[in-house]
Amino acid sequence: MQTDVEIAQAATLKPIGEIAAGLGLQESDYEPYGHDKAKISLDVLARRKDQPDGKLILCTGINPTAAGEGKTTTNVGLSMALNRIGKKAMTTLREPSLGPCFGMKGGAAGGGFAQVVPMDDINLHFTGDFHAITSAHNLLSALLDNSIHQGNPLGINPKRIVWKRVLDMNDRALRNIVVGMGKIGDGVVRESGFEITVASEIMAALCLATGLEDLKERFGQMVVAYTYDKEPVTAAQLQAPGAMALLMKDAVKPNLVQTLENTPAIIHGGPFANIAHGNNSVIATQTALKLADYVVTEAGFGADLGAEKFFNIVCPAGELQPDAVVVVATVRALKLNGGKDKKQLAEEDLDALGAGLVNLEQHLENLQKFGVPAVVALNRFPSDTEAELELIRERCAQLGADVALSEVFAQGGEGGEDLARKVVELCEQDSSYTPLYEPGDSIRAKIEKIATEIYRADGVDYAGPALGQLSQIEQEGYGTLPVCMAKTQYSFSDDPALLGAPRGFRITVRELVVNAGAGFVVALTGDIMRMPGLPKVPAANGMDIFDDGTIVGLS
Amino acid sequence: MQTDVEIAQAATLKPIGEIAAGLGLQESDYEPYGHDKAKISLDVLARRKDQPDGKLILCTGINPTAAGEGKTTTNVGLSMALNRIGKKAMTTLREPSLGPCFGMKGGAAGGGFAQVVPMDDINLHFTGDFHAITSAHNLLSALLDNSIHQGNPLGINPKRIVWKRVLDMNDRALRNIVVGMGKIGDGVVRESGFEITVASEIMAALCLATGLEDLKERFGQMVVAYTYDKEPVTAAQLQAPGAMALLMKDAVKPNLVQTLENTPAIIHGGPFANIAHGNNSVIATQTALKLADYVVTEAGFGADLGAEKFFNIVCPAGELQPDAVVVVATVRALKLNGGKDKKQLAEEDLDALGAGLVNLEQHLENLQKFGVPAVVALNRFPSDTEAELELIRERCAQLGADVALSEVFAQGGEGGEDLARKVVELCEQDSSYTPLYEPGDSIRAKIEKIATEIYRADGVDYAGPALGQLSQIEQEGYGTLPVCMAKTQYSFSDDPALLGAPRGFRITVRELVVNAGAGFVVALTGDIMRMPGLPKVPAANGMDIFDDGTIVGLS
Repeated sequence: MQTDVEIAQAATLKPIGEIAAGLGLQESDYEPYGHDKAKISLDVLARRKDQPDGKLILCTGINPTAAGEGKTTTNVGLSMALNRIGKKAMTTLREPSLGPCFGMKGGAAGGGFAQVVPMDDINLHFTGDFHAITSAHNLLSALLDNSIHQGNPLGINPKRIVWKRVLDMNDRALRNIVVGMGKIGDGVVRESGFEITVASEIMAALCLATGLEDLKERFGQMVVAYTYDKEPVTAAQLQAPGAMALLMKDAVKPNLVQTLENTPAIIHGGPFANIAHGNNSVIATQTALKLADYVVTEAGFGADLGAEKFFNIVCPAGELQPDAVVVVATVRALKLNGGKDKKQLAEEDLDALGAGLVNLEQHLENLQKFGVPAVVALNRFPSDTEAELELIRERCAQLGADVALSEVFAQGGEGGEDLARKVVELCEQDSSYTPLYEPGDSIRAKIEKIATEIYRADGVDYAGPALGQLSQIEQEGYGTLPVCMAKTQYSFSDDPALLGAPRGFRITVRELVVNAGAGFVVALTGDIMRMPGLPKVPAANGMDIFDDGTIVGLS
Repeated sequence: MQTDVEIAQAATLKPIGEIAAGLGLQESDYEPYGHDKAKISLDVLARRKDQPDGKLILCTGINPTAAGEGKTTTNVGLSMALNRIGKKAMTTLREPSLGPCFGMKGGAAGGGFAQVVPMDDINLHFTGDFHAITSAHNLLSALLDNSIHQGNPLGINPKRIVWKRVLDMNDRALRNIVVGMGKIGDGVVRESGFEITVASEIMAALCLATGLEDLKERFGQMVVAYTYDKEPVTAAQLQAPGAMALLMKDAVKPNLVQTLENTPAIIHGGPFANIAHGNNSVIATQTALKLADYVVTEAGFGADLGAEKFFNIVCPAGELQPDAVVVVATVRALKLNGGKDKKQLAEEDLDALGAGLVNLEQHLENLQKFGVPAVVALNRFPSDTEAELELIRERCAQLGADVALSEVFAQGGEGGEDLARKVVELCEQDSSYTPLYEPGDSIRAKIEKIATEIYRADGVDYAGPALGQLSQIEQEGYGTLPVCMAKTQYSFSDDPALLGAPRGFRITVRELVVNAGAGFVVALTGDIMRMPGLPKVPAANGMDIFDDGTIVGLS
C-alpha cells in the first residue's frame, strides 16, 4: 500500500494561480507561497461582503478512538465528491501542528486519496502562521518578564502570572520550568512553563477575529497577569498589541491550497479542540462561503466538544449559518464505545457495535437541538464487515437519520459521491440553526445547559478554586462571555473511561480561565494537557528527505 | 526626515519574477513568496557550477560603536552604485533576527536610501528560515530529553548536556532555567537554558553547508551531550538528522529580494558573529557569483572578527576567492577608538580622530596578510567635518590605502559611485587570497596565529577548563578543525575597554567548544551573551500596523 506522503508526492497539482483563477480571484487578490500555496488577501472578503453565502456543512464525529475518526479525510473527500457531482465546493480545514506530526499522531492533511496538497508543506511550516503565533506569543512573554525585571512599574505579582510561553513542539520537559535563574541581569526567578502553540490564546483569537484591527484589539484585552492588588494586567498595558499585530500581518490571511483532485481548499488556524474551540478561522470559512457554493468545514474531536463549540462560539462570532452536519463514525470507534478492547477493534463484534451505537444516537439527538439537519458518514475500514455496516444502517433508520458509506480514503472523491448527494439534499432542507444558549446567559447557566443537554449529566459541581474564580470573572465584567468547555474527547462525561452514552454522572468544573482576547471563558474539567510529550519511538525517528526531494516517514 | 520604514514602504518594487528574469532565471528556478520575495532553487547553482564566478567583494569594518558602522547600508549602497556605473552587481546579506529587531538594535536591512526591500518582511518572518532553524533545533532538544525520559538507552548524563533550546527572541528570563519539573510524566529535572536562534549551531551549519545532504550530514555530527562514560552523543544517535533536514528543506534555499533601486539581493542565513562566523550562507554567495559580475558580501563586527573568519573559515568551506575588501569606517567610531566619550562623538575632535586612526591602520595591515586589496569606505554622518575627513584621507594616503566617501544612506546608489569605481579598480588588480593558517595546523597553532598576527597579542593563555577541553577535543578527532574565535567586537583584545590598537596584552581562552556540525571549534574569550535581553523601553513598544498596511516603529 502506498503511504500518504507517496500518494501526495505523486499527485498532479495545478498551479495555485489556476486554482485561484477558478475561484474568480485576480492576481492581486492573493500572494503565492511557492507554486502550490497562496495567501488570500482580506480585501476579497471585504469586497464580497454583500454577496450571498454558499451552503455551510459542518463535519463532526462521534467520540473517537485515539487514532481519530477520519474527519479530515471525510471532509476533504466530501469536497472532492461534491465537485464530482457538479457542485462548486471547497473545504476549509485547520492547519496541522508540528508537535504531533513529529510525535505520534502524525500530520493533519487527510489521508490516502483524500488529502490536501502539498501535504509535506502543509504538515511542516506551511506559510508560517504557527511560527508567527509563536513569535507574537513569546514576544508578549518577554515583554512581561522584562517589565518585572526593569523595575516592575505595573506592580505585577510574579506568583500571579497566567501567560506562559509556547513552542510548536511536543516537549514535556518544558511543561513546568523555573525561569530567570543565574545572575542579577538574568531576570526574575519564578515558576512558569511552555504550552504547545495551538494552545495559545493568540491561536484562538486569530480563529475568531474578523481582521487585523479586530485581532489587535483582542491582543490588547488579553490578561497576562495580576498585580499585587489582584488587578488584571493586559497586553495593552505592556504596549505589546501593535508589535504583536505586526508579527501577525500575514498570518491573518487565509491560505489557499488544493485537494488531490484539485478542489480548492482553505487551511487556516488550528486552535486546540479542548481548551479552545477547535475550528479553522472564521475568516477562512467566511472567505470560502463567498467563493464556493458548498463549503465543508471541520470541528475538532467529537460533536460534544467540536460541534457544540462551533454552534455556540464560532457561528455567533462569524455570523455563520450552517446548513448541514456530517457526523463521521467508524465501526471501530462504535465498537470501542460499546466496550470492545481497543486492541481487538478489527474483529467483527455485533454486540459491541450494537451497544456502542448509543454514542452515535446521542450525538444525533444533540445535533437536532441546534436545528441543523445531519447525515452519518461511515468512514469505511477494510476490517468492517457487511453485517456491521448493516446494523448501523438499521439503527440509524430507526432514528430517521440518513447514512452514507464514505470510501474516500481508498477511492478519493468517487468514494464519497453517495455522501455528497445526501449532503446536497440536506442543504435543500430548511436549516433553523440556533445556539443552545442565549448570549446574555450567565456562565453558570451556559455550563449547566451544555452539561445537561449535550453531555446528559445530572448537574455541575464546582471544585477547587472554580467558584471563587467565577465571582472574580463576573466582577471583572466577563460574566456573559461564551463558555469554552475543556473536557476529555473520549466520553460525553468528564471521565474518559465512561464510553457509550453514560448517565447518572455529574460534571466537575475545576477551574475557570478568562481568555478575554479570544472572547470566551474556559471551563476546565479534569486535567487538560497543554504541552504533549513525545512517545517512546517518535515519528521523527523515521523521517527523512533526500536531495531529489523524496520524503519518507511523514504522515 | 523620513524613517527607514517610510522610505521602504514608499519604494517602487519590481515584481520578483522580473528581478529573477533579469538574472537569467527561469520560472522553475525559483519559488515566489508573495510578490516581492522568492527562494532560488539549488539546481541553479548545480547547473552553473562550471561557469566562471563573478568578482567577490567583502564588506567589513573597523571596531565599531554600539550602533554599528553601517556595513549593511554600505554593502547595499555599493551594489546599487556598481549597477549605476554599468556593472552587473548583486549584494548578499545575512537575514535579520527578530530578537534585536524588537529589542534595541533594530532590523538589519540597511538604512535610509540604501535598504533591501520589502524591508518589513525581511525584518520580520521573511521566508521562515529562522523559524525552520528554531524548529529543527528544538526538535533535537525534545528528542534528547525524551530519550532520557524514556529509559535513557544511550546513557546520557543529564549533567553533561551541551545542546540547549533556542528562540528568536531577546528573552533574558530564558537564559538559565530548570526544565522537567512537575510529575513523573513531565520529564527529567535538570538545568538548561535558551539561546537566541542565530546562536544555534544549526544556523552556522546552514551557512557553511553546500546543500541539503551536506547539511543533514552535519546534523548527524552535532554533539548534544556526553554519556556517563564521557563519550560524545550525537544527533545521529538520536535518529534526528532526517527529520531535522525535512524541517530545513526550504530554509536551505537562498532568498532573492531587491534593493530600493531594484538591484538583486540574496539574503540567506545569519549566524552570530561572535560565537559563529557571522557571514551569510556559502550557498547564497556561490549562487550570486554565478548570477552577477560583482557580488558584495558582508562579515559581522570588525575585521578582526568577521573578516578573519570569512577568510579562514568561510572561503575554504565555500571555495571562495575574494577579489577585494571594503573596510567601512565612520568618523564617530574612529574618535571613539581615539578615546572620545561616546556621548560626544558628534563634536569635531581631530586629536581623538588622529589617535583612533591606529585602529583603521591595524585592520588595513591585517587585511594585507590575507592578500586581498582593500579600500576604505567612509560612511558619512551629518556631523562629520571637512577637516576630519581630510585627516583620514591623509593618513590613509600615507599607508597607500584608497579612501572613498560613502553617502548611500542619504543619496542611495548615487552616493556610492566613487566607492564603486574604486572597488572595480581593485578587482582588476591581482588578488592573491590566502588564509592565515594551514588547514592541518593544530588548534593551538591556529589560535596563536590569530592572536598574535591579527589581534597583536603577546601570546595566548588557557584558563579554567580550556586546556582539558583541548586535549579531549584532540582525542575525539576534532584537533584540526578551523577555529572560530568568540571575542568582544569592541577591541582587538579580549577586553572591550582597550580601544584603538592595543599592545602588550595577552588573550585568555576560557573555554573551547566543538561545533562538529558547523565544522569548527569555538574558542571563547570572556563572557559571550548567547541570549540577549530587552532594554528598558523595547523597540516593540513603538511598533504598530494599521488596516491599510502602514507600519510604524520598525527600523
